[in-house]
Amino acid sequence: MKYCVKIEVSLKPGHTDPEGNTTQRLLKELGYNVDSVSVSKIYNVQIESQNSREAKIKAEEMAKRLLANPTKDNYTIKVEEQK
Amino acid sequence: MKYCVKIEVSLKPGHTDPEGNTTQRLLKELGYNVDSVSVSKIYNVQIESQNSREAKIKAEEMAKRLLANPTKDNYTIKVEEQK
Repeated sequence: MKYCVKIEVSLKPGHTDPEGNTTQRLLKELGYNVDSVSVSKIYNVQIESQNSREAKIKAEEMAKRLLANPTKDNYTIKVEEQK
Repeated sequence: MKYCVKIEVSLKPGHTDPEGNTTQRLLKELGYNVDSVSVSKIYNVQIESQNSREAKIKAEEMAKRLLANPTKDNYTIKVEEQK
């Protein structure tokens, strides 16, 4: 079966987020009263897998081995069956 | 009320995604049989707003005016009430 796994990688609390801070400043300059902005990244990965449990385990491995830096990043994983 | 709006900005189909392609290559080198990878970005914006409808309208405006490039980007918006 084909699955689409969405791996969202975001900065752990306490790390500065320059892109988020700049975006907040620009939105304020445009007149929006924005309290804070943080930016995270989603990797949409299409994989072939036996079932959704196996797809999730693979995605966890990918996050740990390549996509997320354990020193500074958190990640969350969602698995969707491919339409 | 405080709301957290999540604005996800992704490339429109047909645009090359160099970061996605590189990630796919690296995941293959690590032994994962990955069909494709695309990368999108989420802006988590905290705003003060009367209700969720108004928060969504503001987020639409932010996406159009600053966050998404109409030539190459799609965007989706989710509004969550702040815990």
